Amino acid sequence: MNISFHEDTITAPATPPGIGALSIIRLSGPESFRLIDKIFKGKKKLSDADTHTLHYGLITEGSSTIDDVVVSVFRKPNSYTGEDVIEITSHGNPFIQRKILELLIAGGARAAEPGEFTRRAYLNNRIDLAQAEAVADVINSSSQASLRGARNQLDGLLSSKVKTLRDGLVETSSLIELELDFSEEDIILIDKSEIAGKIERIKAEIENLLKSFSFGKILRDGVNIAIAGKPNTGKSSLLNYLLRESRAIVSSIPGTTRDIIREDIIIDGFLFRLFDTAGIRSSVDEIEVEGVLRSRNAVKNADLTVFMYDSSEEFPEDLYRELLEVIDRKKLIIVQNKIDLPHIDGPLTDVKISAKTGEGIEKLLHSIKDRAFVNSNYTEKSIIVTNIRHKDCLVRAQDFLEKANISCRQNLSGEFIAADMRNAVEILSEIIGEITTNDILNNIFKNFCIGK
Amino acid sequence: MNISFHEDTITAPATPPGIGALSIIRLSGPESFRLIDKIFKGKKKLSDADTHTLHYGLITEGSSTIDDVVVSVFRKPNSYTGEDVIEITSHGNPFIQRKILELLIAGGARAAEPGEFTRRAYLNNRIDLAQAEAVADVINSSSQASLRGARNQLDGLLSSKVKTLRDGLVETSSLIELELDFSEEDIILIDKSEIAGKIERIKAEIENLLKSFSFGKILRDGVNIAIAGKPNTGKSSLLNYLLRESRAIVSSIPGTTRDIIREDIIIDGFLFRLFDTAGIRSSVDEIEVEGVLRSRNAVKNADLTVFMYDSSEEFPEDLYRELLEVIDRKKLIIVQNKIDLPHIDGPLTDVKISAKTGEGIEKLLHSIKDRAFVNSNYTEKSIIVTNIRHKDCLVRAQDFLEKANISCRQNLSGEFIAADMRNAVEILSEIIGEITTNDILNNIFKNFCIGK
Repeated sequence: MNISFHEDTITAPATPPGIGALSIIRLSGPESFRLIDKIFKGKKKLSDADTHTLHYGLITEGSSTIDDVVVSVFRKPNSYTGEDVIEITSHGNPFIQRKILELLIAGGARAAEPGEFTRRAYLNNRIDLAQAEAVADVINSSSQASLRGARNQLDGLLSSKVKTLRDGLVETSSLIELELDFSEEDIILIDKSEIAGKIERIKAEIENLLKSFSFGKILRDGVNIAIAGKPNTGKSSLLNYLLRESRAIVSSIPGTTRDIIREDIIIDGFLFRLFDTAGIRSSVDEIEVEGVLRSRNAVKNADLTVFMYDSSEEFPEDLYRELLEVIDRKKLIIVQNKIDLPHIDGPLTDVKISAKTGEGIEKLLHSIKDRAFVNSNYTEKSIIVTNIRHKDCLVRAQDFLEKANISCRQNLSGEFIAADMRNAVEILSEIIGEITTNDILNNIFKNFCIGK
Repeated sequence: MNISFHEDTITAPATPPGIGALSIIRLSGPESFRLIDKIFKGKKKLSDADTHTLHYGLITEGSSTIDDVVVSVFRKPNSYTGEDVIEITSHGNPFIQRKILELLIAGGARAAEPGEFTRRAYLNNRIDLAQAEAVADVINSSSQASLRGARNQLDGLLSSKVKTLRDGLVETSSLIELELDFSEEDIILIDKSEIAGKIERIKAEIENLLKSFSFGKILRDGVNIAIAGKPNTGKSSLLNYLLRESRAIVSSIPGTTRDIIREDIIIDGFLFRLFDTAGIRSSVDEIEVEGVLRSRNAVKNADLTVFMYDSSEEFPEDLYRELLEVIDRKKLIIVQNKIDLPHIDGPLTDVKISAKTGEGIEKLLHSIKDRAFVNSNYTEKSIIVTNIRHKDCLVRAQDFLEKANISCRQNLSGEFIAADMRNAVEILSEIIGEITTNDILNNIFKNFCIGK
């Protein structure tokens, strides 16, 4: 790694802001012990304390006590950042936190940037870059499924897969480079089609990773479902039924009837964001235009659209055609509602339900899950690509491998092949951060929260 | 103490809710180790771990990992509650927190009531009741001054003062009771006026504590200052000047011109809540009635009112008289503004300022502090009563001592005196919680936050 190491000591609050029983302030760097000893009065000096021990005492400023605290001591390299780390657990009062931070900063610490602790963990080889990115995902996970995906990545499943692929490429590439060393002697050491075979096998594995991304996106961000239909077809009733059933409402974004209402529910550990649209129709009513446009966009951006119609009315052919202008039929689940009332079956129905009695809703959920996770033969320990940066790296690596492959098949000079393979190797190394730039790092860590 | 001890193990999130780098879940009770060992996978079983040690590992559910965490181990009696306490520091994700809590509760823990950890600390004699109450005050302190007051109380300054007074009463009372034992023998052992002298000395000390309460209230809750005056006299300019100068804005509650705007500022470590009133005047304008009433109330409820008038205009006699209907002249600081412009001095002015140039504002602040802290000969280590329950106890104790004192002076039978003194002793014991009821405890702890 070519990144210079920062020798200063950083500090930041690490718990969510606000009032609570406890709050934590983190301190990491070569000066951690000197800084804490200045303001902590306990049974012993913390610079004499063993690693992984807890110490009760007072944080003081001159003769006055700021708070009584418990201090956690982690000595390098056995800490989160790999440096000497001190965590001060005080009463959960923002004023106390600010005061302690001020004291630490007055003593010579620097306020940490967002994600800087994790950045140091990465720079000190405690975790690789893909794992560092997973830390932010773990913190922001809002369903069991997204947590599982982030968790696997933090545990290094993706990293070790990428390393295996990269090592395979390096090995293949070394065969070519070996030949290049002897090229003036016109010795042919290896069969290019054998190399091509090796490249193709790696390409296939990368392809599998790339395929997992559409599922990974769902894993990480949830499934966006638009619920469309004419007014009074029971869209709100369906939403209410699902909310009641799922019982695990993450959040509810209220809106007026013309706005889009979003409700987040969790089914089988997956997050579903349900958008109740205002009823898509070609409106001439000026006031409704914006509402209609937003609905069209909601449908366009959704992973799936549940299109509801009322059994007792005619099938809304116009609306159906309008939806198909915006999305693919595969993304549409046509639902015939109000089957508890006398009704005639419509022509294109996928599922029949009664949002009132709940009949058919189990089937609807099944259908939603089926459509959303088209490739979901994934198990708990599957390696899933959830991060767009990783996906982009894999796509770029794949392009170079494709070029290398073609060169092999065309029996071109080893120099071209080797150059393309080196590029692919470097790009794979970017995923785990063995090769990186400050720009990439800044971009990754700027989205972290303070104190992590 | 007569309160039965709860033998169950309680758990709760202890850090403020929301997303952050870290969050803590607390666990306290006899089952803490059994419960954590069920879900924690680390290098060793935590039931074998030493007290005050930190352990990195995984929280798992079956074969899946919920999070990697650091667990703090505190063995009884050296913990916050005096019981075995486990603190689980996980990533600061509400979903992870909920999951870990669910696992602990599934294992047999009970979700803790607000303040239940502190209640146990009190029941296990780790702290007394006045200290337990101070914990909530420490968490809710929003200025250095309020923190200092709460801090002193948590450090036991008030408790030890109350104990000294109570012990003095017990000693005095025992002299009387000794005499009662011999009463049939008509032996007069002590001089009642001597007893009266002792009681009076204790009464004087309680009186001092009671006097500190008006300051204690300010210490704890800050000073409410209404800024009143006709429109365009420069009230907003003054507010803005103070806000800019204090630099330590705690919060700003925005409002429309007709609402009351509240701004919290900190001067010399004290919290001042400034209420900008809409301009008090007997309005006949229907729409303004509510605004005017609220202003009147703001003035009525304020500790001080800064009444501003414009130097270039006549002294607003009508408004002045209206203010005096609502508050006392002593609570009024009359401020002549705009002295940067040509002006004539008004008749009743306390301070002359220019909210534009800042001239005189230092003097105004001085005047505010003077009036607000009438009895503020208090130093950093002074014992200040900040809690209304304590004040009420002191008032009640004082009443009984006054009766005892009168009985002494009238040389009444020792039985009356002893009974009154016993009552006073019991009431003082209520402050530190040596005598208490579940109702009192419930009332105190219901206002705590969860996890404390």
